[in-house]
Amino acid sequence: MKAKREALTSLFTAMREEKVDADIIDLLLLINSINGVYTTSSCSGRIGIIEEPALGAKPLARWLVKVHRPIEFEEARRALKNAEKGLIFLKSQPPIFHIVAEDLERAKRLHELGLASGFKYTTFKVISKRYLVEINATEYLTAPLGKDGKVLVDDEYLLFAVDLGNDMLKRSKGRLPRLERNFKALKDELGEDELFYELAEEHGIEEKWRLP
Amino acid sequence: MKAKREALTSLFTAMREEKVDADIIDLLLLINSINGVYTTSSCSGRIGIIEEPALGAKPLARWLVKVHRPIEFEEARRALKNAEKGLIFLKSQPPIFHIVAEDLERAKRLHELGLASGFKYTTFKVISKRYLVEINATEYLTAPLGKDGKVLVDDEYLLFAVDLGNDMLKRSKGRLPRLERNFKALKDELGEDELFYELAEEHGIEEKWRLP
Repeated sequence: MKAKREALTSLFTAMREEKVDADIIDLLLLINSINGVYTTSSCSGRIGIIEEPALGAKPLARWLVKVHRPIEFEEARRALKNAEKGLIFLKSQPPIFHIVAEDLERAKRLHELGLASGFKYTTFKVISKRYLVEINATEYLTAPLGKDGKVLVDDEYLLFAVDLGNDMLKRSKGRLPRLERNFKALKDELGEDELFYELAEEHGIEEKWRLP
Repeated sequence: MKAKREALTSLFTAMREEKVDADIIDLLLLINSINGVYTTSSCSGRIGIIEEPALGAKPLARWLVKVHRPIEFEEARRALKNAEKGLIFLKSQPPIFHIVAEDLERAKRLHELGLASGFKYTTFKVISKRYLVEINATEYLTAPLGKDGKVLVDDEYLLFAVDLGNDMLKRSKGRLPRLERNFKALKDELGEDELFYELAEEHGIEEKWRLP
C-alpha cells in the first residue's frame, strides 16, 4: 500500500520530532504493525480551555491551555486570564483513532473492535475507495465559560467543571488497555505487516521505542 | 424489504399517535418514499435541561425540560428548580437521522448527501448485513450547571448558555431545507418505493399529511 508507506513515514517522522502524544505511541505502533490497516490522525484524549472567535470558526480557534492528562484547577484558572475575544469553552475530549482499512472486511473488524472496547461512537466512512474507521467515545464536555475575555463563572463552578472534565477524560482513557488487548488479538488474526518493520528500521525507531 | 415494512408501520403508527417531531415529518416521509432506504430513530434537534444520576448512566437520565425549538430563558430557569439528584446539564443537540440502506452503494450516496448538506458528522456503520447511516452535525453543547439539586451558575450565565445553545440549534436546523432538496434529487436518482405508498394508504396518512 503506497498510502501506508506515506502514512508510516509521516508517523515515524512526527515521533522523532516529539509531535505524537506519548501515551498512545505503543498503541499506534501496534495498530500500524498489523497487515492491511494504518492510522492517520489520532489523539490520546485531552482537556483544556479554548477560545472560538465565532460559532463554527474552528480553524481560527486558539487553545489557552491544553493537556493530555487531567488538568490542575490552577492551570485552568491561570489560562482564563488570557482570554480576549470569542467564546470561551472548557473542553474535554476522549481518545480518538482514525484508521484506514484496506477493505470492507477489515473495516468491519475494526468497527466491531472499537465498539467491543467500549468506544461507543465508533463509526466509519467510505472515502473514494478507502475505508476510514473512527474509534471514538462518548465522553465529550463542551462547557461555555464566558465571552470576549469576560468569564461568567466563579471558582466554585470552575472547580466543579474541571473535576467533571477530568473524570470524563479518566473514564475514556481507562479503556485504552482493553483497546490494546483487542488490537493484539486482531494482529494474531490478520498477521503482521513487513513494510511496517522495514520502515521502522529505516527510521531507527527501535533506538527510542519498543517495537510491537 | 421486510425490515422496511416493519419500520414504515412503526413510523406511521407513531405519527398517528403524535410521537414524531412535527417539523421533520415531511423530510421523514420523503426519505422513506425513496427506493432502498428507510429511517429508524431520528430527531429534529432539541435543547433542554437534563439530570444524569452518574456519569454514563444515560438510561436513568431525566429531562427537566426538553423542546424541539429554541428554549425561553424562563422555561430553563423554572425547570432548574426541579433539580434533585445527579449532574445537571444544559444540552443542545442538532437534528439527527438514522437511515438504513439496502446496499453499500446507497449507503455511500447517503453519506455523501449528509456531508454535502452541511451535516459534518455523517458516518456509517455496518451491522450484520445492514448499512446504517447517521446524518449528524457538530453543534453539540453539554454545559454542566450543577449537581444534586444545587445550581452553580447565576442568571447571567444561564442566559448566556441558553442563548448559545439556541444559536447552535438554529444553525443546525437551518440546514434542513438543504437536506430536503438533496433528498429530492436523490429520489429522482434512485426512484420511488411502491411499498411506501401502499402502506401510507393503508394507514390513512394522507388524511393529515401531504405525501411526497
